[in-house]
Amino acid sequence: MIEVIAFDADDTLWHSESLYVMTQEGFKEVLAPYELNGDIDAKLYETEMGNLKTFGYGAKGFTLSMIETAIELTDGRIQGRDIQKIINAVREMISRDIKLLDGVAETIPLLARDYTLMMITKGDLLDQESKIARSGLDEYFQIIEVVSTKNKDVYQKLLDRNGIDIARFLMVGNSVPSDILPVLALGAPGVHIPYQYTWSHEHVELDQDPQGLYRLQNIGQLPELLNQIN
Amino acid sequence: MIEVIAFDADDTLWHSESLYVMTQEGFKEVLAPYELNGDIDAKLYETEMGNLKTFGYGAKGFTLSMIETAIELTDGRIQGRDIQKIINAVREMISRDIKLLDGVAETIPLLARDYTLMMITKGDLLDQESKIARSGLDEYFQIIEVVSTKNKDVYQKLLDRNGIDIARFLMVGNSVPSDILPVLALGAPGVHIPYQYTWSHEHVELDQDPQGLYRLQNIGQLPELLNQIN
Repeated sequence: MIEVIAFDADDTLWHSESLYVMTQEGFKEVLAPYELNGDIDAKLYETEMGNLKTFGYGAKGFTLSMIETAIELTDGRIQGRDIQKIINAVREMISRDIKLLDGVAETIPLLARDYTLMMITKGDLLDQESKIARSGLDEYFQIIEVVSTKNKDVYQKLLDRNGIDIARFLMVGNSVPSDILPVLALGAPGVHIPYQYTWSHEHVELDQDPQGLYRLQNIGQLPELLNQIN
Repeated sequence: MIEVIAFDADDTLWHSESLYVMTQEGFKEVLAPYELNGDIDAKLYETEMGNLKTFGYGAKGFTLSMIETAIELTDGRIQGRDIQKIINAVREMISRDIKLLDGVAETIPLLARDYTLMMITKGDLLDQESKIARSGLDEYFQIIEVVSTKNKDVYQKLLDRNGIDIARFLMVGNSVPSDILPVLALGAPGVHIPYQYTWSHEHVELDQDPQGLYRLQNIGQLPELLNQIN
């Protein structure tokens, strides 16, 4: 019997990766006039992966990775004003209006009537808090947690800290490795709702869907699935 | 009767601002060969203040503020390799060993026997978590909270979330505006222990010490103060 539904936020409740994709396109335009010693997307991804342990997930680490990528690909020839353009693009990305995904505005209030709703999101603390506040959804969520990473231990700690019984818990998210697999490993069901873009780091191919994994196309299908499970 | 003692972390339990001061000195060395159109310290502080709302407290926002300051003070003439030096200096700062302040290693285990210890720290989530883990102190703290800012509402939420009675709560920290005044406003005592450096933003002059404010020179004096209060 599910009583607590936890949601990822970025790309599950509101658009996020599309903004990163757009900012990355702008980054490529900034670099267009330069002769580069490598591929932008590949070098940026490599830099981001190398920086994850130090700078973590989120917009600020993304900015620093773009700057380092620009310096490296131009052999240090990148101009100061072009680096300023990169920072400005992120500042604009961070302050954009939050666009909820289709079905979220109707489904979340509906579910909040019957379930305890929880939000589990990773990224920069201040940025995530700001997005939550601007989303208008915070009133429906009794528990909101911003974490630096999502793995089995982190979910276990969040369950313990909030006194949640794993047998009554279900997680919903767009990332199989972050939102679904660690929760399945704890014995709870996970509902995967893909987003139109998936950051390579959050992509995983499964030979076969494991038990407890449900796949939906839209959050609007969630109430019916919950009726079936419960 | 105090039962829960909350501690700020940076510059209260371990050295932090001294690393920022050192990194800022290195930043000035990077800019030394350039003709600048303003004062480094003043422009950096102005940039940091302007960025607080977007990038928040912590090392990553500090890095972005240094980069923007360098671009502005050099009218965009800063070289890519010099910007890389700024990022590398922060990367080194983040990964340094944690140096506990005098008296912390003895006092915290002692207090943990008789009190519930809580840590309330602000900054970049991943960076703060990493410092907590590397400090070796986490086993003594039953509650650890990383927040994006510290004001009366934030403290109230932390008390509510952890079921703490304000009448049994005391806060210890090096920043009067962040660690002491908001807690006094809630009616709990605050113990100020100054650090050798105070970031301008965390400095405040008080005409007169308000009721409930205690001042110590060293954390080693805390057990005796608690005996007097309780």
